[in-house]
Amino acid sequence: MIRIGLIGYGYWGPNLARNFAETEDCQVARIADFRPERLAQALRRHPAAGVTTDPQELLRNPDIDAIAIATPVATHFDLAMAALAAGKHIFVEKPVTTTSDEAARLIEEADRRGLTFMVDHTFLYTPAVRRIRELCDKGALGSLYYYDAVRVNLGLFQHDINVLWDLAVHDLSIMDFLLPESPCAVSATGVRHVADRGEDIAYLTLFFPSSLIAHIHVNWLAPVKVRRTLIGGTDKMVVYDDLEASEKIKVYDKGITLNGDPATQHQMRISYRSGDAWAPHLDTREALSLEAAEFVRSISTGERPLSDGEGGLRIVKILEAASRSMAERGVPVPIEIRRREGSEFSDSIRRLKGAILEHQSGDRRRSPAHAG
Amino acid sequence: MIRIGLIGYGYWGPNLARNFAETEDCQVARIADFRPERLAQALRRHPAAGVTTDPQELLRNPDIDAIAIATPVATHFDLAMAALAAGKHIFVEKPVTTTSDEAARLIEEADRRGLTFMVDHTFLYTPAVRRIRELCDKGALGSLYYYDAVRVNLGLFQHDINVLWDLAVHDLSIMDFLLPESPCAVSATGVRHVADRGEDIAYLTLFFPSSLIAHIHVNWLAPVKVRRTLIGGTDKMVVYDDLEASEKIKVYDKGITLNGDPATQHQMRISYRSGDAWAPHLDTREALSLEAAEFVRSISTGERPLSDGEGGLRIVKILEAASRSMAERGVPVPIEIRRREGSEFSDSIRRLKGAILEHQSGDRRRSPAHAG
Amino acid sequence: MIRIGLIGYGYWGPNLARNFAETEDCQVARIADFRPERLAQALRRHPAAGVTTDPQELLRNPDIDAIAIATPVATHFDLAMAALAAGKHIFVEKPVTTTSDEAARLIEEADRRGLTFMVDHTFLYTPAVRRIRELCDKGALGSLYYYDAVRVNLGLFQHDINVLWDLAVHDLSIMDFLLPESPCAVSATGVRHVADRGEDIAYLTLFFPSSLIAHIHVNWLAPVKVRRTLIGGTDKMVVYDDLEASEKIKVYDKGITLNGDPATQHQMRISYRSGDAWAPHLDTREALSLEAAEFVRSISTGERPLSDGEGGLRIVKILEAASRSMAERGVPVPIEIRRREGSEFSDSIRRLKGAILEHQSGDRRRSPAHAG
Amino acid sequence: MIRIGLIGYGYWGPNLARNFAETEDCQVARIADFRPERLAQALRRHPAAGVTTDPQELLRNPDIDAIAIATPVATHFDLAMAALAAGKHIFVEKPVTTTSDEAARLIEEADRRGLTFMVDHTFLYTPAVRRIRELCDKGALGSLYYYDAVRVNLGLFQHDINVLWDLAVHDLSIMDFLLPESPCAVSATGVRHVADRGEDIAYLTLFFPSSLIAHIHVNWLAPVKVRRTLIGGTDKMVVYDDLEASEKIKVYDKGITLNGDPATQHQMRISYRSGDAWAPHLDTREALSLEAAEFVRSISTGERPLSDGEGGLRIVKILEAASRSMAERGVPVPIEIRRREGSEFSDSIRRLKGAILEHQSGDRRRSPAHAG
Repeated sequence: MIRIGLIGYGYWGPNLARNFAETEDCQVARIADFRPERLAQALRRHPAAGVTTDPQELLRNPDIDAIAIATPVATHFDLAMAALAAGKHIFVEKPVTTTSDEAARLIEEADRRGLTFMVDHTFLYTPAVRRIRELCDKGALGSLYYYDAVRVNLGLFQHDINVLWDLAVHDLSIMDFLLPESPCAVSATGVRHVADRGEDIAYLTLFFPSSLIAHIHVNWLAPVKVRRTLIGGTDKMVVYDDLEASEKIKVYDKGITLNGDPATQHQMRISYRSGDAWAPHLDTREALSLEAAEFVRSISTGERPLSDGEGGLRIVKILEAASRSMAERGVPVPIEIRRREGSEFSDSIRRLKGAILEHQSGDRRRSPAHAG
Repeated sequence: MIRIGLIGYGYWGPNLARNFAETEDCQVARIADFRPERLAQALRRHPAAGVTTDPQELLRNPDIDAIAIATPVATHFDLAMAALAAGKHIFVEKPVTTTSDEAARLIEEADRRGLTFMVDHTFLYTPAVRRIRELCDKGALGSLYYYDAVRVNLGLFQHDINVLWDLAVHDLSIMDFLLPESPCAVSATGVRHVADRGEDIAYLTLFFPSSLIAHIHVNWLAPVKVRRTLIGGTDKMVVYDDLEASEKIKVYDKGITLNGDPATQHQMRISYRSGDAWAPHLDTREALSLEAAEFVRSISTGERPLSDGEGGLRIVKILEAASRSMAERGVPVPIEIRRREGSEFSDSIRRLKGAILEHQSGDRRRSPAHAG
Repeated sequence: MIRIGLIGYGYWGPNLARNFAETEDCQVARIADFRPERLAQALRRHPAAGVTTDPQELLRNPDIDAIAIATPVATHFDLAMAALAAGKHIFVEKPVTTTSDEAARLIEEADRRGLTFMVDHTFLYTPAVRRIRELCDKGALGSLYYYDAVRVNLGLFQHDINVLWDLAVHDLSIMDFLLPESPCAVSATGVRHVADRGEDIAYLTLFFPSSLIAHIHVNWLAPVKVRRTLIGGTDKMVVYDDLEASEKIKVYDKGITLNGDPATQHQMRISYRSGDAWAPHLDTREALSLEAAEFVRSISTGERPLSDGEGGLRIVKILEAASRSMAERGVPVPIEIRRREGSEFSDSIRRLKGAILEHQSGDRRRSPAHAG
Repeated sequence: MIRIGLIGYGYWGPNLARNFAETEDCQVARIADFRPERLAQALRRHPAAGVTTDPQELLRNPDIDAIAIATPVATHFDLAMAALAAGKHIFVEKPVTTTSDEAARLIEEADRRGLTFMVDHTFLYTPAVRRIRELCDKGALGSLYYYDAVRVNLGLFQHDINVLWDLAVHDLSIMDFLLPESPCAVSATGVRHVADRGEDIAYLTLFFPSSLIAHIHVNWLAPVKVRRTLIGGTDKMVVYDDLEASEKIKVYDKGITLNGDPATQHQMRISYRSGDAWAPHLDTREALSLEAAEFVRSISTGERPLSDGEGGLRIVKILEAASRSMAERGVPVPIEIRRREGSEFSDSIRRLKGAILEHQSGDRRRSPAHAG
C-alpha cells in the first residue's frame, strides 16, 4: 500500500486526489493546503484523509511514502527537494521547475536516494497520444516532415507563468514522447497584452538535426478553442484533434512521391498521393488513472516511470531556450538535450500497454454510456 | 472600351480572360502563350480574340490599351516594364516581382507615364475580406491584439518559388488591407523536404510598432486543407474560415476586461467576457469580376486602383525580409514600409462598395441556386 | 428543509442524489435500491443518508417529505401512488407512467391531497431550451412552419421500453414546452431488429390544428451521435445542436416572402431571404440543479412546477397514440390534449428566470474553466 | 458519332449540353428552347450547334440520333413519345414522367423500337454512390437495418411539383441503386405552407419485405443545407455526407452483437461493438460526364443503360404511392415493383467501372488543383 501525501488542493489537486484514491494499492493519506476552505472541501470528499495547512507536517509523517505536489511552479523545487530529503518519492505537477538546473538537481537527488521522481505529463497517458506513439513505433508514418500543434482558447491568464510555460508545456511533452529525436534549437516569438502578466500569445519553431521541423502555437486570447496537431510523414499523415468526441485521430494516406534520379536534381519530378483516411478506435480509460497507477507501480518495482524527471528536465530546457529566443524576437537559441533511451523506457511502454489491455478486456463487458 | 492583351494562358490566365471578357466596357483583344495547345484552348473559349506565341506582338499592337501578365514571377518585371514603355496599363499576377527594387521601378515608371499599375491581389475583392474591412473601419473590433492565418493543404509544389512566395502572399495582402499599421520586422522559419525545390513549410511572425502581432503558417505538405484566420481585438474577435460554405466570417463578443488602477499594476485583475457570436451574411459576387471592373474603372478615371503597385511592393518587401530571416532560422529582420494613405484609397473603397451595392440590388431579384 | 427519499440508484439516481444534496433547503435523507452494491456506492457518496433495500421503509418514514422515483417505468405508478397515499410529494423519472390513465390518476390524487407532482423532463431546464423558449415567447420566429428533431446514436437497448419511450420522450417534452399548440394526430413508423426488444428505430410525424408539422427521428443503431433540432418560422429559423460545445443555438434570418395578392393565387411570387446568423451566448448552470431547486420551491410555495404531472400526461398520451400508429405502419391516430395554461405556468417561467439571473450574476465573478 | 438534340436550356440543360459536347463520339447538334434569351446564351457557348424555338424541328431532323429532354416534367411524356416515334433515342430529365403509366408506355415503346431510353438519375454516377454500391456488392455492410436520408435547404420552390417529386426523387434513385430489395409499402406525411404550391416539407417511410426500413426527409424551408444519408448494417454502417469536401463517405465498424440462444429469447444479451472508422478515397470524375458517356455507349452497343427507363418507372411508382399516403396523413400505401435484374445490369456496372479506371489512370499523371 502506497500512502500519498498531497500538497496543493486548488484546480488540479482534487483530480490527483480522486485518482490516487481509486488506484489499487494506494491511498490518499493526508492533504495540505494553506486555504482552510479548500481543506474543508478536501475533507468532504476524502473523509479518511487528514488535512493540514502545514506541508512540512506531511514530510515529517513516517507513514507517508510519497508526496504529490500540485502547487504554483515557483514552489515546486523547494517542496520536492525537501520531500526527497525526507525519503519520500515525488510526483510533481508540470512544468516541473522554473529552471533546468533545479530539475537536474532533483533528478540527481532522487537517483542518489533511489527514490521515484515522476512528472505529471498527463497527455502521455491519453488513449490518443498512446495510439499515435504505437503508429510511430511501427514506422507507419515513415520519416517525419513536421509536427505542428495549436492550443488556443480564451483562457485563464496565469499569474506566475506565461502562456508558453502554461500551455506549450503540454505540446512539448507530447512531442518529446512521440518524436524519435530531440530539438537542437528554437526560435520563439510572442507578445503580452496585459501589463503585469507574461506573454499571452506565443509561437515556437523547433529545429532538429534532421529536416524535421516542429511548431507550437499557444494563445490565451482566442475566441474559439482549438487543440489540433498535424504530424506529416513520408508515408502517412496524422491529424490529432483533441476536441473531437469520437474521432480524435485521423490517419491520412496522403503525400508526395519523388521520381527521377536525385543525383540530377533538376529533373526531380513530384507526384501526389491521395488515398483513404482512417480513424482508429481509441480505448476510453481516463489518462490520470493510468498515470496514478504508473506512479504506484514505479515505486513498488523501482522501475523508472514513463514520465520521469528526465522528461520534465527536457521540457524545461526547451522552455528556457524559448523564453530567451522570445525576448529577442525569434533569434534562434540552441538546446542541448541528451536522451537516456534504455531498457527501462521500453519496459515502461510495455507495462503501460499491459495495463490498458487488462482494462479494455474489462471494458468489453460493459455497455455504452446511456444516450439520453 | 478597354482592350486587354493577356500574356500567359496557364493555370490562372483563363480566369482572367473569362472575367475581363464579361466586364462591361472591356474586351480581351489578344492572348499570348508560348504553348500552342494552350492557345488552341484560348481560341475555343475566346473566338473573337487573336492568339500568338509572341508576347511582343501584344506590346506593339496599338489597339491594345492594357496588358495583363499571368506568367511565372521571374518574367513579370521585364514584361511589365516593356508594356509600360509601350504605353500600356498593366495588371500583374502576384507576387508582383521577385525583388522590391523591381516593384519600385515599375511604380515609378507607371507614375511617370500616368499609366495604371494594378496587382492581382484577388482576396481583397472577396465578400468575406471586404466585410471584415468594414468591421475594422467601423472600429468594431477595438484595438487589435493579433492576426493569425493558416493556409495549408497538400499543394502543388511550385518550381520557381517557395511556399512563402506562393501562399503567404495571399495572407500578407489581406493583412495589409485590413490592419491599420504595417509590420516593422519579421521572424520567419521554414524547411524544405525536396532537394531541388524551395521551402514547403514556413512560419512567419510579424512585429508591429504597437503590441499587435501577426503570424502566418503556410504548408504544401498538409493532409487537410485549412484556410483559417483569427483576428483578436479588445472588443470583438473574428474567425474567418474561407472553406465554410455559408458562414465564412464569425464575429465573437469575447475577450477580457482589465480592472484596477494600471498605475499599480500588480493589482490588475482580469475578468472574462463571453457573449454572442454572429455570422454576417455575405454577398456572392465573384471576387475576380469585381477586380476586373476595378481595373477598367481605374484606367478610365485615372484613379489609383485598390490593389495598386504600392500594395504589391509592400508585400514583396515583407517576403524579402522573411526570406532573409528564414535563411537564418528566425533572426528578426527589420522591414521599412511607408504607406501612402490618401483620398484615392478611400475613394477606391467607396467606389467598390457602390459597385457591390448595385450588384446586390440586382441579386435580390434572383432566386437561390437550385438545390438538387 | 425538504427531506428527500430516493428510490432507485442505478444510472440516473446518482445524478438526482448529487443535485438534491447540493440544493439549498434540501437534503437526501434516505436511498433505496434492491441491489446491495448500488447501496454501498450510495453510502460512500452520501454518508449522511441512510440506505435500505426496502422502498416501503421510505414511504413509512415520517421525516421524509418527498419521494424521488428513478426506477424502471413499469414500477412508477405503484410507487408514486403509494408515496402520495403516504402524504409525500413526488418527483418521477420520465416517461412518467406506462399509460395515460395512470398518469391522470396520479394527477388527480396529487391534486386531491395538495401534494406536488413533478416529472423529470430535464431538458426544459437546459440553457439552450430555455433560450429558445424566450425567443418563441417574444415572437422572434414568427409563425412556425415545422419542428424537426433527430436523436440518434449507438445506444443502450432498453429492456422494458422501445426507442420511442426511451428517446422521443425527450423531444416530445421539449416540443411541448416550446410550441404554442398541442398535436392533434400522429403518424408513426418504426421497426425492431432484435427479437425480444422493442423498436430500435422510429419516426414520428405530429399534426397540429394549424399548418405546423413536427417530426422526430430516434434510433439506437446509428453509427454517429446526432442531437439536432430545426425549428422553422416565418421570421427566423433555429438550429439547436446539443452536441455543439459553445454554439448550441443558431438563429438564422432566412426564409421566404410571398408577394402578390393571395386572392389570385396563381400570381403568388416567392422571394428568398438570406441574412445573418446569430449564436446567442448561453448561461452554464446545470439543468438538473435548476430542476432540483424548482421541486423544492414548488413544495415550499405550493405552486405548480414547470414540469408538472400534466406535462408528463401530455407526453404519455402522444407516446400511446404513436405506439398504436406504429403498429399499423403509420395510420394516423388522433390525440386529444387539453392544456391548462394559467397564471401558474407563467409564474413558473418567471421564477425560473429569476433563479438563473441570480446564478449568472454570481457567475460573472468567476473565471473561465482552466484550459489545459 | 452520336448527334444530340437538346430540348430545354434552362437550369439543367446547359450542364447537359456542356457534358455531351465534351463526350467522345458525341456532339450537340441542335438546341431548342422557347425563350430567345436562353437560345442566345446557348449559341454563345455552342456556336457549332443550331438553335430553334421549335422542338418539333429537332424531331424532324434526320441528322439527329437522340433527344435529351430537360423541360418541366409535365411535358416529358409527350416530347419523349414523339421523339421515340421519330426514331430517336431518348435521355429524360428526372422525374421521368408524372405518372407510372406514362413511364411504362415509354418503356414499351422504346423496347418495341429498339431505342435507348435513359433517365437522368445523375447521383448513380457520382464517385460516392458508386463506392457505396461496391461496398454493398461485396457484402461489407452485412444485412441492412435501415437507410435514412436527409435532403434539406432553403430551396427554390418549384411551380409544378412538390418537394417530394423535386428532391426525394434523388434519394429514391440512390436507394433503388444501392438496396438489394424494393419497397413494398410507403407511409408519407408532409405539409404545404404556400397556398398555390405543393408540399414544401415531406417525410417518407418505406417498408420492405425484410425488416429493412428506409426514411427520407426533404424540406425546401430549412435554414441550413443538409445532404446526409445513414446506412446501417449488421457488420458496418455508412455515413454519406455529400457536402463534405474530401470525406464524403465514412464506414464505421460499429454495431451490436446478440448473444445467447435465440430460441429462449428472453435471455438474449446485446453487446456493443465500436471499432475504427474509415473514409475511402473517391475518384473525382464528374458524374454527368460519366453519365453522358453511358448514354452514348448504350446507343452504340444497344446495351441497357445503368439508369434506364425501368429505374425511372420504379421511382415514379414510389412517388405516386407516397403522394396518396401523404394526402391521407401517413396511411400506408402498397407499392408493387417487379425488378428485372439480369446480365445487362451487371454488365453496365462493370462497363462503368472500366471507364472510371481508365479515367483514373489518366488522373495519376496530373497534379492536384492549385491551392491559392
